[in-house]
Amino acid sequence: MPKIDITAVPERRGSGCPPPYDSPCATRIRRRLGEAGGIQDFGVNLMTLPPAAWSSQRHWHSHEDEFVYVLQGELTLVEDQGRTVLRAGDCAAFPKGTGNGHHLVNESSQVAVYLEVGSRHRDDLTTCSDIDLQSANSDGRFVRKDGTPHAR
Amino acid sequence: MPKIDITAVPERRGSGCPPPYDSPCATRIRRRLGEAGGIQDFGVNLMTLPPAAWSSQRHWHSHEDEFVYVLQGELTLVEDQGRTVLRAGDCAAFPKGTGNGHHLVNESSQVAVYLEVGSRHRDDLTTCSDIDLQSANSDGRFVRKDGTPHAR
Repeated sequence: MPKIDITAVPERRGSGCPPPYDSPCATRIRRRLGEAGGIQDFGVNLMTLPPAAWSSQRHWHSHEDEFVYVLQGELTLVEDQGRTVLRAGDCAAFPKGTGNGHHLVNESSQVAVYLEVGSRHRDDLTTCSDIDLQSANSDGRFVRKDGTPHAR
Repeated sequence: MPKIDITAVPERRGSGCPPPYDSPCATRIRRRLGEAGGIQDFGVNLMTLPPAAWSSQRHWHSHEDEFVYVLQGELTLVEDQGRTVLRAGDCAAFPKGTGNGHHLVNESSQVAVYLEVGSRHRDDLTTCSDIDLQSANSDGRFVRKDGTPHAR
């Protein structure tokens, strides 16, 4: 059955970042819709951000494209060029390899919901813009930008 | 600027299928959001189907995953296992290589709007389920299933 039963898709709360960097995303909820539907080439996640929650630490990808579409509420997109409010029906794209880190922050008093879509590449390196943290898809570990392990 | 100005994204009306197979999609409107945002790994299209319009001929992909998320209105998903109504907030996934053709038909009296996401693969072959039509990404031509050209 191609239709996905969203109510049956597990809710994953919080981020996998090492503390204290996981803290701003602690109330974030991710539902992996694409995975539930059996597709592999890209991920599609239904994301819920309560007031004050962040989508992630601000970051960019070396080898993966990203796209977001806001379904409900209001989010502030933060990136090198500044801050932009995104409302329901707005969307944004983050091409790989630009070095321009982005994240979404819920600065409103209402819950915000959006779709995030991302490609998957074994060579991808995620680099955080504002903190000393990187993570490579090859091993999934979080390290400092000099390559040394991040103490947990 | 990562935010995409949807009003500036060109509307492409109708389908590229050879006649008469393009007819049910003649009023379909596609806006290529991902392309407008400069991403390449997957396509994200904002699709508008007026009443009676089809998304496409019913088809399946050999090497590309597909995902749809309904934003507005009501659509009937038709595939080998039957017919399923999708409403705003519903989604469906179509893994590559299943042989189970799908399409969306607007059988309601209101305009329907949805997002379609699809990966891109140079070896992909699109096979139509109900008509004698195939198309390979390698050359983009429409041919019969025996490989002979489709007269236009």
